[in-house]
Amino acid sequence: MQLLKDRIVKDGIVKEGNVLRVDSFLNHCMDIELFQEIGKEFRRIYEGEEITKILTIEASGIGIACIVAQYFHVPVVFAKKNRSSNLPDHVYTSQVQSFTHGTTSCIVVSKDFLKPDDRVLIIDDFLANGCALEGLAEIIQESGATLVGAGIVIEKAYQRGGQALRAKGIRVESLARIQEMSPEKGVVFA
Amino acid sequence: MQLLKDRIVKDGIVKEGNVLRVDSFLNHCMDIELFQEIGKEFRRIYEGEEITKILTIEASGIGIACIVAQYFHVPVVFAKKNRSSNLPDHVYTSQVQSFTHGTTSCIVVSKDFLKPDDRVLIIDDFLANGCALEGLAEIIQESGATLVGAGIVIEKAYQRGGQALRAKGIRVESLARIQEMSPEKGVVFA
Repeated sequence: MQLLKDRIVKDGIVKEGNVLRVDSFLNHCMDIELFQEIGKEFRRIYEGEEITKILTIEASGIGIACIVAQYFHVPVVFAKKNRSSNLPDHVYTSQVQSFTHGTTSCIVVSKDFLKPDDRVLIIDDFLANGCALEGLAEIIQESGATLVGAGIVIEKAYQRGGQALRAKGIRVESLARIQEMSPEKGVVFA
Repeated sequence: MQLLKDRIVKDGIVKEGNVLRVDSFLNHCMDIELFQEIGKEFRRIYEGEEITKILTIEASGIGIACIVAQYFHVPVVFAKKNRSSNLPDHVYTSQVQSFTHGTTSCIVVSKDFLKPDDRVLIIDDFLANGCALEGLAEIIQESGATLVGAGIVIEKAYQRGGQALRAKGIRVESLARIQEMSPEKGVVFA
């Protein structure tokens, strides 16, 4: 998606340690008009696919997922990061490792909101090592719903996540795939 | 807002301990078409006010804020809950107490995204004791921006938050104000 790539080049900041900061338009300050274009693009890509629900994960996936959902006319469910030691009742759960924070957290989705007849599209802002997406896919499988595919805004294509998920037969569509990046070179798209 | 009140009566569940569960349409599974109506209503209420930014707080405020922002044609900034002991550089911060979780957390907003010439509308799903809203108001004040007002989906009007904020001169507009509630009586609106 050219509009998005142009925006990453213009406003993204590549930092040492494999960090791409896009918080001026994607995940801290959110450009809603850009999100609308992202929503139209995912609708185009998943044309003809019946989708009944969008699933995402807190916090930075939620805004994008809600705007995207308007083009599919479906509700959004977001997986919550469970921070207490007690697990609530009546939930699907999965363990998700965060390389950024060096932690493992438990994500939960109420059993009320994913059913076997649901056809689910996962939406998230980033795909790198794929842990969040794998956790969401696991929850969908637990529920008996069908995972139609994933819509990712930015994929770090040089990390293992996308490849591993596609190898499992999961459809993963990313609007901007980064081949390499560094503070010196900036971002090079695949 | 009658549509919202009807929905709370139909799908909200009042639990012991002052808990209103609205996670089937507001803050876990999110009814995007309802959010659109909420957005139109806030636009109507704040008619004529110049707004340049919407501020909310993760996680459950984000989805509503993003849909509402479309009717104001402005970006959304969400305050992040800082979970690490290190505070990032270049941020405005405030302490927010959570009565639900019995914790105090530090919320942060990058200084890049709130400027003295901004006119800010706060959007959030719930107002009860008002701590989150006070924290957001503090951050706006720190930044030198103007707080135009707050748009709240559900206010527990029997708790102190709304009154305390209005007493400070902050404009607080809530779409559904709950006068009292209990598992026996259900929800009584103000």
